[in-house]
Amino acid sequence: MTSSLDSLSRRAFIERLGGVGGTGLVMAGMSALGFGIESRAATPPSLSGGGGKKIVVLGSGVAGLTSAYELSKAGYDVTLLEARDRIGGRSYTARKGTKLTELGGEAQTCAFDEGHYINPGPWRIPYHHRGYLHYAKTFEVPMELFNNDNDHSYVYFAKGSGPLAGKAIRKQEIAADTRGYATEMLAKQVNQGALDQDFSKGDKELFLSYLRSEGYLTGKDFKYIGSEGRGWAVDRGAGLNPGVPSTPYALSDILQSDTWATLKSVSDFDQQRTMFQPVGGMDQLPAGFVRHLKPTIIHKSHVVEKISQDADKVQVHYVDGKGHRGVVTADYCICTIPLSVLRGIDIQVSDPFKKAVSGVSYAPVGKIGIQMKRRFWEEDHAIYGGHVYFDNPDIGSIALPSTGWLGNKGVLLGYYQFGANAAKISAKRLAERQAFAVAEGQKVFPQYAENAESAFSIAWHRVQYNLGGWAEWNTDNRRDSYPILNEPDGRIYLAGEHLSYLTGWQEGGIESAWQQIGKLHKRVHA
Amino acid sequence: MTSSLDSLSRRAFIERLGGVGGTGLVMAGMSALGFGIESRAATPPSLSGGGGKKIVVLGSGVAGLTSAYELSKAGYDVTLLEARDRIGGRSYTARKGTKLTELGGEAQTCAFDEGHYINPGPWRIPYHHRGYLHYAKTFEVPMELFNNDNDHSYVYFAKGSGPLAGKAIRKQEIAADTRGYATEMLAKQVNQGALDQDFSKGDKELFLSYLRSEGYLTGKDFKYIGSEGRGWAVDRGAGLNPGVPSTPYALSDILQSDTWATLKSVSDFDQQRTMFQPVGGMDQLPAGFVRHLKPTIIHKSHVVEKISQDADKVQVHYVDGKGHRGVVTADYCICTIPLSVLRGIDIQVSDPFKKAVSGVSYAPVGKIGIQMKRRFWEEDHAIYGGHVYFDNPDIGSIALPSTGWLGNKGVLLGYYQFGANAAKISAKRLAERQAFAVAEGQKVFPQYAENAESAFSIAWHRVQYNLGGWAEWNTDNRRDSYPILNEPDGRIYLAGEHLSYLTGWQEGGIESAWQQIGKLHKRVHA
Repeated sequence: MTSSLDSLSRRAFIERLGGVGGTGLVMAGMSALGFGIESRAATPPSLSGGGGKKIVVLGSGVAGLTSAYELSKAGYDVTLLEARDRIGGRSYTARKGTKLTELGGEAQTCAFDEGHYINPGPWRIPYHHRGYLHYAKTFEVPMELFNNDNDHSYVYFAKGSGPLAGKAIRKQEIAADTRGYATEMLAKQVNQGALDQDFSKGDKELFLSYLRSEGYLTGKDFKYIGSEGRGWAVDRGAGLNPGVPSTPYALSDILQSDTWATLKSVSDFDQQRTMFQPVGGMDQLPAGFVRHLKPTIIHKSHVVEKISQDADKVQVHYVDGKGHRGVVTADYCICTIPLSVLRGIDIQVSDPFKKAVSGVSYAPVGKIGIQMKRRFWEEDHAIYGGHVYFDNPDIGSIALPSTGWLGNKGVLLGYYQFGANAAKISAKRLAERQAFAVAEGQKVFPQYAENAESAFSIAWHRVQYNLGGWAEWNTDNRRDSYPILNEPDGRIYLAGEHLSYLTGWQEGGIESAWQQIGKLHKRVHA
Repeated sequence: MTSSLDSLSRRAFIERLGGVGGTGLVMAGMSALGFGIESRAATPPSLSGGGGKKIVVLGSGVAGLTSAYELSKAGYDVTLLEARDRIGGRSYTARKGTKLTELGGEAQTCAFDEGHYINPGPWRIPYHHRGYLHYAKTFEVPMELFNNDNDHSYVYFAKGSGPLAGKAIRKQEIAADTRGYATEMLAKQVNQGALDQDFSKGDKELFLSYLRSEGYLTGKDFKYIGSEGRGWAVDRGAGLNPGVPSTPYALSDILQSDTWATLKSVSDFDQQRTMFQPVGGMDQLPAGFVRHLKPTIIHKSHVVEKISQDADKVQVHYVDGKGHRGVVTADYCICTIPLSVLRGIDIQVSDPFKKAVSGVSYAPVGKIGIQMKRRFWEEDHAIYGGHVYFDNPDIGSIALPSTGWLGNKGVLLGYYQFGANAAKISAKRLAERQAFAVAEGQKVFPQYAENAESAFSIAWHRVQYNLGGWAEWNTDNRRDSYPILNEPDGRIYLAGEHLSYLTGWQEGGIESAWQQIGKLHKRVHA
């Protein structure tokens, strides 16, 4: 069912529905107005009767694999070309033997022990990424929890001042103290009547009860004097040990340390619990797709040189791993090549389309996995997974592994930077990247340097066939270029995380593929 | 090393250390003053040279298993008597075929599908339960994350008033809105200068920045107008779908619903992340102990009838599974039988000791596991693990399983009540308990009743050899009875969660065992 409303007035209408009837009515409105595939979908479009039409899919990241899987299931004749000698694109896992040579960089072979790995690309799956979870379920790819937030981990902020700057501080202490003092201040104001105009009588009492409960304030005079939630000076235990309470930090010390910047009333939507990872590495979902695709569909080591089209067909010119050139002729093309790479390929599209392809920035992103001889963060610091946040953007964060609990070794993420910081660190030689990451980690964990035994680093902006971590739209090209690229140019459809509002997430690639193959299918059957 | 300071002045001294030097100095002080085994320990006491002394251990919960394992490793000659025909005590897992008949109750056989289970006793392991994690590591019992807090789960509070009462509300919405409004109110007060006396100039600006960040307030005028963290009315997705923001609830509606009572600046210490569970069920740690104990040590189906002692020996009189009576004679006894049961056994101890054993309450506790035909909480509600909190204490909470993600069936915890509520529900017949739990769950999940296919319920206060969930000390008997029971009476040492400040947790049992066997060993070698 389609509507004659244009998308702007549809949106205004839907927002009005939201104001009147809440979320349920918005959902119904979305559906009734034919938003269908454009709204957030939890399952693939229902396709059937491909009738042997030939589709060439470019790229074997999750967008390409989703397209190939759904289209071939619906009866289309699919050929998938992948430039690399492996499938998965950024859905990638580095483990023993994984080789990578960045553009202009040194050759690197991962030397982690068997069973250890790092996911250098996407690494976590929020509960609302229902497309990803749909395929994990379909292909029986086992999932495990990813510990994205750990109360007992550290914050290491060095740029502020005062006694807490440049020290590893437990997150639970910052949360309890900052919020404790804030609720105390507000409770006193409310209690004194300073906000009486904001409350009915009953509400005021309820609000004070809320503040007392939220901030662990004293019953009578709403004082924050510390709380069990910030941890004990000595944990209570067996026998005659009731524990020794810990002492809160001074508010001024917290404020001057800037560590409060890690606190949010609720995590950002993309970072909330529940968060998952595939057991054994992020490449397990691509492997699941491959298990469900005819082996003749995927052609690895086929690098696209040129894409041409006319009124009847599309042609993809490639060079294969042996240097042989060839052409795939198809009825339609689903191209999931990142725009950062696509703009270097000879592609026969309209000028506005070509201009749109060229105008999007890609994020410089750097990560390093470091194998540690023992899990000192667990054994000596009682930190099991989660992140250590830095205010040094050259590090960003250290992430402790959410797998191999209580084991003998572990691979942690030693840095995660973006933009100019990623560009700067990526200019270092491999050994220097590792030395830098280790020196910074040492500031938090005294056991860091002595346990670091090997590393694998990646700078996505320097990786051939990626040239960046993900698309970064700005207001202008989101308005001007993005709608153009979401429509096919002739027989060529683009798909990928770059054609979504979930850039940098595999879910964006999957849902974009669903949307584009849905459009293509509708056209075939028009 | 021991000190001549009595424990009161030691504590005062330690608290003074804490004030001067922080946690590190407290820890050092604890150690220097010989607190040793009394402080929170992360590893078992170092024992050696048991020299064949004979120890009888009563009970095969984690306290009994810990005692038997460490003592036999140190060369003691250990005999463990267990009343039941299984080991583990409350560290227990109900799965296909598990039988339970409560005192005066109907016979119950668990009919869950293979691979599904419920942990009717302890079910989660906080990161600071280092004794438990020590044994999990030692015995290579695989651990997985327990999702103890899920932003996207529901709160179902029906006792308040207003439009949010008696409705399933997402936790992330309550958190974002309540805290958003609170930070807005406080920011406006601070901005108007109402709290200038509390801040230096620079701190005031930092505090306002904190409030803006914490509450997702607008940049200029510190208003809360909703946030991405509360979720979208329509999630953003691929193509031309930037998402539709959701609308915050009115503060008054939240206050009147009482749902704010679920918010805490930081989780209580015992409930914080990271939280674990053993893969496959809580009985996996007892199974690990058994793998590392000589098979001749453990005697199941041996019910203790009488414990006597004299200057040279202790004697435990039992009746075995065939009705035969016998006696174990030993040098010492470690008795981990719950006080609720021990007070019904003929035990030769001093009157004050006997009185102390008799005076402790045990918690009525009820749980029910319900197997569901499909995981509708995941598939239809995008809730993966975590709890749904009720303000009806007859239910307490529903907990969604942290295992079997994306599978086809699942066992959830249908209620978890305490005290009078547990006593009330436990009086129902098994079918009525299930019907009650299902009717309440139906209020949150429309798919609940149609998917419920079998249940296993337990009321610990009605279970023979437990007679309660855990010891509940009050101020008086913690002061008067507890120290008596922590010292041996003649040759009899008590151990268990009841002899700790971690009652109801396996860690209390483990650390209590460490403490008591440490004392015993010191005495043997005195």
